[in-house]
Amino acid sequence: MFLRNCWYVAGWTNDFLAGAPVARTILGEPIVVYRSECGDIAALEDRCCHRLAPLSKGRVEGADLRCMYHGLKFDASGQCIEIPGQGVVPPRARVRAYPSVEQDCWVWLWMGDPALADRALIPSALNHGDPDWYMQTGRLAYEASYELVNDNLLDLSHLSYVHENTLGRNSMSWGESRPTIAPIERGLRISRWVCNQPGPAYLDLPPGTRVDMWASYDYVVAGVFLLATQSFPVGTAAACGMAAPNGEPLFRTTTSQAVTPINERQTIYYYSGCLPKSLVSEEASRQQLVVFERAFAEDNAMIEAQQRVIHRTPHPVMLGTSSDHALNQFRQLMAHLIEAERPKLSAAE
Amino acid sequence: MFLRNCWYVAGWTNDFLAGAPVARTILGEPIVVYRSECGDIAALEDRCCHRLAPLSKGRVEGADLRCMYHGLKFDASGQCIEIPGQGVVPPRARVRAYPSVEQDCWVWLWMGDPALADRALIPSALNHGDPDWYMQTGRLAYEASYELVNDNLLDLSHLSYVHENTLGRNSMSWGESRPTIAPIERGLRISRWVCNQPGPAYLDLPPGTRVDMWASYDYVVAGVFLLATQSFPVGTAAACGMAAPNGEPLFRTTTSQAVTPINERQTIYYYSGCLPKSLVSEEASRQQLVVFERAFAEDNAMIEAQQRVIHRTPHPVMLGTSSDHALNQFRQLMAHLIEAERPKLSAAE
Amino acid sequence: MFLRNCWYVAGWTNDFLAGAPVARTILGEPIVVYRSECGDIAALEDRCCHRLAPLSKGRVEGADLRCMYHGLKFDASGQCIEIPGQGVVPPRARVRAYPSVEQDCWVWLWMGDPALADRALIPSALNHGDPDWYMQTGRLAYEASYELVNDNLLDLSHLSYVHENTLGRNSMSWGESRPTIAPIERGLRISRWVCNQPGPAYLDLPPGTRVDMWASYDYVVAGVFLLATQSFPVGTAAACGMAAPNGEPLFRTTTSQAVTPINERQTIYYYSGCLPKSLVSEEASRQQLVVFERAFAEDNAMIEAQQRVIHRTPHPVMLGTSSDHALNQFRQLMAHLIEAERPKLSAAE
Repeated sequence: MFLRNCWYVAGWTNDFLAGAPVARTILGEPIVVYRSECGDIAALEDRCCHRLAPLSKGRVEGADLRCMYHGLKFDASGQCIEIPGQGVVPPRARVRAYPSVEQDCWVWLWMGDPALADRALIPSALNHGDPDWYMQTGRLAYEASYELVNDNLLDLSHLSYVHENTLGRNSMSWGESRPTIAPIERGLRISRWVCNQPGPAYLDLPPGTRVDMWASYDYVVAGVFLLATQSFPVGTAAACGMAAPNGEPLFRTTTSQAVTPINERQTIYYYSGCLPKSLVSEEASRQQLVVFERAFAEDNAMIEAQQRVIHRTPHPVMLGTSSDHALNQFRQLMAHLIEAERPKLSAAE
Repeated sequence: MFLRNCWYVAGWTNDFLAGAPVARTILGEPIVVYRSECGDIAALEDRCCHRLAPLSKGRVEGADLRCMYHGLKFDASGQCIEIPGQGVVPPRARVRAYPSVEQDCWVWLWMGDPALADRALIPSALNHGDPDWYMQTGRLAYEASYELVNDNLLDLSHLSYVHENTLGRNSMSWGESRPTIAPIERGLRISRWVCNQPGPAYLDLPPGTRVDMWASYDYVVAGVFLLATQSFPVGTAAACGMAAPNGEPLFRTTTSQAVTPINERQTIYYYSGCLPKSLVSEEASRQQLVVFERAFAEDNAMIEAQQRVIHRTPHPVMLGTSSDHALNQFRQLMAHLIEAERPKLSAAE
Repeated sequence: MFLRNCWYVAGWTNDFLAGAPVARTILGEPIVVYRSECGDIAALEDRCCHRLAPLSKGRVEGADLRCMYHGLKFDASGQCIEIPGQGVVPPRARVRAYPSVEQDCWVWLWMGDPALADRALIPSALNHGDPDWYMQTGRLAYEASYELVNDNLLDLSHLSYVHENTLGRNSMSWGESRPTIAPIERGLRISRWVCNQPGPAYLDLPPGTRVDMWASYDYVVAGVFLLATQSFPVGTAAACGMAAPNGEPLFRTTTSQAVTPINERQTIYYYSGCLPKSLVSEEASRQQLVVFERAFAEDNAMIEAQQRVIHRTPHPVMLGTSSDHALNQFRQLMAHLIEAERPKLSAAE
């Protein structure tokens, strides 16, 4: 079950070149995303209403898209505007169009009722396109439900185990501490101090540097992860009484990540890593991405293995632990929103 | 749903070497086709009645076929004639045999009631084995229903789009004109003029030659396509009032094609290209095949993509256009014949 | 349907290195087999009770196994003994443990009620680990039901067909003779003379040597094959009235084989070939394994093909022959044992 009235990331803006339609599947629906000759993004049902050929094999003509099986042409609203060899185009000759927005280097699609598509509901990515920050980007395909990817990002205790040699830095802090969790609009804010840990290798700090790191992220439906870290001298966490810090940190990092369901069993995951130009070289930024790629491959292997176990288990039951609080709250929020939109959908039908 | 009382092409005659059994699946049924040591073709159920091993892994012995799991031997009628280590062979030890005919370089199998197998129902391929014509042959496997392949061949308006750079020759004639359609015995005759188009590149015509081409084909159940083209000087179509031509054309080409269902989702497609030796070189004939291979790969990509879209669409609905007339008539003919043979099958059971 | 109260071979003892957990699937159940730092074998459900991640991606710590997703630690009985960041471990935090035994170079797991696990039910492999014999070992994965592999081993008439150029040695003896079949505890004893056949090539016998071979094997549930052959001068069989021989043979060979169901459609097959050091060189022993590998690949190709035919046949029916007696008796024995354990299982639930 998916939340339909929601914006989903369909790709990085530069995935979509003018005149080159791209096939995407989101929430199980086939979608063609194309950039018109003028540079505008449009998204249509990837299924011609005539013989059901995919429009992603079609040809962009101006702002329109022509099916290259028998030549029907559609405008960006999904209306068919030409049937070769036939004078009259019936109004019902149309395909579904999806509201689309380019924001923060991502193309976002609204998968629910177009009348409810509100740009204000798009979460703001951190430092994407910020001229004072380096941004590195990546993507990863999962043979797993988006819920398992969300679960993973909502319980960072796994850093001490899955990522013991990468992000976890051989520290039990992640595994043994518990974050504070607070509700925010359509999401959760999850924060914690990770104390007395080595600074990131790619920052070229003096050998032996250790820090107290305040790691706080917002997790917004249906799967947007917005994390900022602030590192302070060791002792700062205790001096703050383990509450949020006030002063200026030694350094900051941000990462924004979006989890988009392809279908019930497949997911695509887009992520950035951002570092301030004032502090690091571009090479350090690239090194951060290398660490991310290695770590996310560790997640990928674990989550896909978990998915396979779940898939083969007739009646899977999970035993709760104290590290599950955030993911349980998020699953409840999702279930509530999905439930809430059901009457709307049936009224619209 | 398949039409059972019908001849289907199982391959080119030279696919079947004496002593080398070949596994085929037609209408979802496993079949072993073998050529006896004397050169006769036989076709049996590819499933030994003992432990259900495939007879296609067996050994041809004279006119018979021995299962190489435990040694049962079958004659060409499907009767078991030897069980090693057992004196008596029960009459019910037998497998199904399929009537088979070699005609026009193709091996044809009758998939229905053997008592109804009538050689006169085999369509005549055009110029196959004709000593005055070159013949080139090919085959192509489809991950798609045979109905979609039939649809494609019954609506040549796709030439202007799918084949814009190959068979369509950048002309909108195919896409924008509509053919005449007439019923024939177990099929349709579909004819049209394609006016003022360049002659085929492989014919080595004077540069800039343009022709009016009369393209007429018979489409016979369950999927045999027999096309002859006749090319005339530009203006001939108009002079004929767009009706069929009478005189001798500048040149002719023929192609015969057979669509054989492997099962509900897979199809195999056999095709020839024939050109008169009086007009072209053997090299031109080979060039024609190259064009065919390229064009049929375009069809394959489009139809397999269409099949995938249909497969993932819960309730697929197709919007009719004026280019669908032939394929709709053919689908009705097929449905009628399939419906008509149902009582016969149940009476036979 | 599987027999649960039974020992199954999970691998060769040297498949399991200390500290390196191994994933296995037996009777459709995911199992992690690991050797503790002290060298003891343990087998647990390969599914953490927390988020269902596979424990085979975990870390051995002493005699315990830690899940490397969120760090839960389990002892060899399956009890969770640590949840990081949580003081109390609830008793229900546990996974299933499987009784395991190392015997005759194989690791055996008991798949049924642990209270019924009786080491005395483990069949004794022939000459495994015997210092006076060479032992070569192999394994083969099947995309086929274990029942088809059992059938194959219970009807050696196939040697004359499947293995005509390897084990069958171009002799019809296997195909045309019928063995005597006698019940034993949880199995069958199947014996026959194979007369006047060439001795094995790897034995380096004088050219033209022919022998009468007494081949007798026990076949024990759920699929353990224990074969000893004794070769005598030609004429011995007749002199014994085709009954079991008494005297000392010219030479002996043994092979022990275990068929373990992975699931309904996949099987793993472990086999040895043993020859007495007094008679052959180590090189001859290796040559025997080469013959086995070639022959078992022939079985594999035939049985997987048979499985595919069965899978695509809506209502598969097999016609009995006189070579099926042993496999029919064994299938009845298995059905009886499976039926007999049903009430026990439901009482235990």
